[in-house]
Amino acid sequence: MIIKSEIRAGAYFDSVVLMQLQRKLAALDDVDDAGVVMGTAANKALLEEFELLSEEGKKAKADDLLIVVRAADEKAALDALEQVDRLLKEKRTAISQEFRPRSLEIAVKQLPDASWALISVPGRYAAGVAEQSLDLGLHVFLYSDNVSLEDEVRLKTSAAEKGLLVMGPDCGTAIVNGIGLGFANRVQKGPVGLVGASGTGLQAITSYIHNLGGGVSQAIGTGGRDLKAGVGAITAMQGLDFLAEDEATKVIVIVSKPPSANVVTELLSRAKQIKKPVVVNFIGYPPPASRLGNLHFTNSLMESAQLAVELAESENEYKGEAVNQNPGFLRGLFSGGTLALEAVLGLQNVISPLYTNVPLHADQALKDPLNSEAHSIVDLGEDVFTVGRLHPMIDNDLRIRRMNQEIEDPETGMILLDVVLGEGAHSDPASELTPAIKQALTQRPDVEFVAVVLGTDQDPQKIDEQIAAFEKAEVKVFRNVSKAVEFISWRYRAAEGIKFPIVSLGNRISAINIGLESFYDSLKGQGAEAVHVDWRPPAGGNEKMMDILAKMKK
Amino acid sequence: MIIKSEIRAGAYFDSVVLMQLQRKLAALDDVDDAGVVMGTAANKALLEEFELLSEEGKKAKADDLLIVVRAADEKAALDALEQVDRLLKEKRTAISQEFRPRSLEIAVKQLPDASWALISVPGRYAAGVAEQSLDLGLHVFLYSDNVSLEDEVRLKTSAAEKGLLVMGPDCGTAIVNGIGLGFANRVQKGPVGLVGASGTGLQAITSYIHNLGGGVSQAIGTGGRDLKAGVGAITAMQGLDFLAEDEATKVIVIVSKPPSANVVTELLSRAKQIKKPVVVNFIGYPPPASRLGNLHFTNSLMESAQLAVELAESENEYKGEAVNQNPGFLRGLFSGGTLALEAVLGLQNVISPLYTNVPLHADQALKDPLNSEAHSIVDLGEDVFTVGRLHPMIDNDLRIRRMNQEIEDPETGMILLDVVLGEGAHSDPASELTPAIKQALTQRPDVEFVAVVLGTDQDPQKIDEQIAAFEKAEVKVFRNVSKAVEFISWRYRAAEGIKFPIVSLGNRISAINIGLESFYDSLKGQGAEAVHVDWRPPAGGNEKMMDILAKMKK
Repeated sequence: MIIKSEIRAGAYFDSVVLMQLQRKLAALDDVDDAGVVMGTAANKALLEEFELLSEEGKKAKADDLLIVVRAADEKAALDALEQVDRLLKEKRTAISQEFRPRSLEIAVKQLPDASWALISVPGRYAAGVAEQSLDLGLHVFLYSDNVSLEDEVRLKTSAAEKGLLVMGPDCGTAIVNGIGLGFANRVQKGPVGLVGASGTGLQAITSYIHNLGGGVSQAIGTGGRDLKAGVGAITAMQGLDFLAEDEATKVIVIVSKPPSANVVTELLSRAKQIKKPVVVNFIGYPPPASRLGNLHFTNSLMESAQLAVELAESENEYKGEAVNQNPGFLRGLFSGGTLALEAVLGLQNVISPLYTNVPLHADQALKDPLNSEAHSIVDLGEDVFTVGRLHPMIDNDLRIRRMNQEIEDPETGMILLDVVLGEGAHSDPASELTPAIKQALTQRPDVEFVAVVLGTDQDPQKIDEQIAAFEKAEVKVFRNVSKAVEFISWRYRAAEGIKFPIVSLGNRISAINIGLESFYDSLKGQGAEAVHVDWRPPAGGNEKMMDILAKMKK
Repeated sequence: MIIKSEIRAGAYFDSVVLMQLQRKLAALDDVDDAGVVMGTAANKALLEEFELLSEEGKKAKADDLLIVVRAADEKAALDALEQVDRLLKEKRTAISQEFRPRSLEIAVKQLPDASWALISVPGRYAAGVAEQSLDLGLHVFLYSDNVSLEDEVRLKTSAAEKGLLVMGPDCGTAIVNGIGLGFANRVQKGPVGLVGASGTGLQAITSYIHNLGGGVSQAIGTGGRDLKAGVGAITAMQGLDFLAEDEATKVIVIVSKPPSANVVTELLSRAKQIKKPVVVNFIGYPPPASRLGNLHFTNSLMESAQLAVELAESENEYKGEAVNQNPGFLRGLFSGGTLALEAVLGLQNVISPLYTNVPLHADQALKDPLNSEAHSIVDLGEDVFTVGRLHPMIDNDLRIRRMNQEIEDPETGMILLDVVLGEGAHSDPASELTPAIKQALTQRPDVEFVAVVLGTDQDPQKIDEQIAAFEKAEVKVFRNVSKAVEFISWRYRAAEGIKFPIVSLGNRISAINIGLESFYDSLKGQGAEAVHVDWRPPAGGNEKMMDILAKMKK
């Protein structure tokens, strides 16, 4: 067997064309296998796996088209390579004969009521095409991947300010007004609206909803990075705002690959203000509870669909409890390690930034456990605190001292305590803690005290008397952490409302497709109005020429 | 204000004594505040926070007792320090007058049917006392913290081999035969048995069960590190084995702070073999689903209690499906990123080690996405694979090549695929994938093929025909990832059964208490038989002398 390669510097072809060329080469007589790829490191590594990489092929650069043939002998290999141009032309003539505009501007003239651009050109060209589309007033469905984070933030911010959506980059799917964009399953219309930073996540949930007899109003893809700290959920937030107002949507589903904690806080804070049930599925991000007010957390894509369908069938009423916003920081001073951990689990969805000495994520680690920072949860029963000292469930001294320390900090707005009753614990914790709390409230009447009292009616401390004593000291008492988290989530819900103008999606789809022709076929097949742009990279894909052109424009 | 300190090198006092001394000093006339602590870095930092650390005090070492007084003037401070010995004696005479054995050996003679040792001496002495207790045939409840991981593993292994339990170190709680050990709430007896690597987690769930009208058979604490990789859940596994056999236990609850992934696999693998419902609450570790066979996953301590009580009231039947064990590795080749991620989420509870290019934990990262390793899940739609190449939902070439690569690997036992139908996707994936699968099965008839087919009856590919084609090619087809994970979890359930002799807990508690006197009081208060050892550290706590004594014994 012999391997022969050809490198075409900076040549651009649609990836469908490349796939077809590869298959045709491999099907030639005497040819054993073939590869047609851009010369990236990953692609060359793959060719090596398939025994298609020669010394010659290794020289291809990321922008080069690399064509490889493995054949019985040198002659067969060279013969095959000689046919490349003919095979490429074969494809060309197979293209449908209807008029294809060569630019976005012309396409928009051809389809004046176009509201969407579907972009699937190679990553390095995608941001430019998206920007052009936004300038033309089009929503953007950006299928292309390998787009930089900076470009994503820039595009999304400018779009949001104009009331336009940028779904993506790397957005696999959306369903808008019943039409699937990119990869999308055909589903019934119905009352469930979705926002997803997760392509197959959206596809799975919409499919399951349909299979369960439910239906979908809109499924808004955001691209996989939207819920990461760098982007801050710009598109997801626009999607939520839209679905909150959308009359056809009765239940909202948010699905995402593991998000950033502070983005979660902001997004859920907005979601809590919506008077509709919101099903939340952050895959791989542990839920704080099964339910927090109108937020319902699920553990799998299937469960999200099931719950959404169930909720859509039931009457849901959420009263927007009018509570004052607590402007200070929460300081949680715990004696029980697991209760502290459960508080972190819940509160990481509710307030940020949150620091703790029992972190669930590395970026939550409190630098100095002796000093709180922003919102803090401190487990005072950690090993470091208990050398030669009684556990804080028995001895309240350390906790009272820390409480006084927090009270001295003008940024403290709420103090959260746990009180663990039972055998082995202090015989009357309220008798020591409540005088300290009363004293603290004299100094700082603006600080709220919240306590989780854990125990049973048979515990030696008499739980009813303990609770009464704390309540008399103006402490808000809960019997488990989940309930306390729910209360805190109301106290700390975001004050600010909608950031960007609400997008309009109309009631149909009229789109310009730039990139994969198969997406155009799919749009037409679904009955949408569409125009396909016969796109070519600027300067024929020659990077140096592109740079010169770009400089000339400035 | 003036600060005066006294350092007592290597002096040992019970931490209750230290707390009382501190309070008495602080209550003296003219004394503003006082501190009595072991001179660890953390304790000195705390003294500094409370303005109790002077240059003198900074010199205290970790084994030293550091006594600090802050007073109006030097005379008052020195007067206070002069009273330390008198105040310490005051405590002494308050001790009850009954006979107190000075050693474990004598205590066992005094209480010959003792089955438990409760150990709460300082960490550096705790492993020695625990070892002695095991040698005397006692189960150990090890409240002490600051015990090394090596000591924990050694103690637990030697105990397990003898059919004894070591709960801890740093075990806060347990309920054995209705008696609370350490910190424990008083709860009704009933059908729920618990195992917990989480002190207040166990306290919370047992309390909530009681408050909901349910009851507890046994609550077995393991210490917080038991479910970490270093220990491998020795105690939790013994606890599970016990509860599986225990007739009084109808429902089992496992609660833990975030565990290690491979420990989870082993523990749940054992739990799946139990013909009782098992409620699992790994705090901060995302559940794979709400249910996998007899395993029920919950999101909060409260939900765990609610579900356990519910399950205890219902009839539960689990048939132990007889399936062959698959001895090879699973290789998942995905086109959908979120489906791959959901597979990782589920499978990390089921098989290990698991590697992937969409890791939920850093230690799951696949070194080279082009080559599988042990159990592997590969998302072939990742950016790195799609430069200049069509997405694997459209083009099956890459996936078929990778499938052939896995088939060449003799360690491959199962190949898992997703097939995403719908708009934009390949028009007939089965037509390309099933011939490749048939070909692979000719070469490797021992390999199992599993596919998740995602789509609806309205998708252009005709889902029924797609499924039929895969089934005809001997592929086991599921409609969502959760169901596939459930199937795989049965195929890969652990073959091995019980590792250690099943422990016996009898039906009462008779215990020897070494350390905190309050735990003894609590045992007696609950009606348990108990003896308190008037324990003193060897050589009066003098580390150098201890070393010499230890060497002399050898």
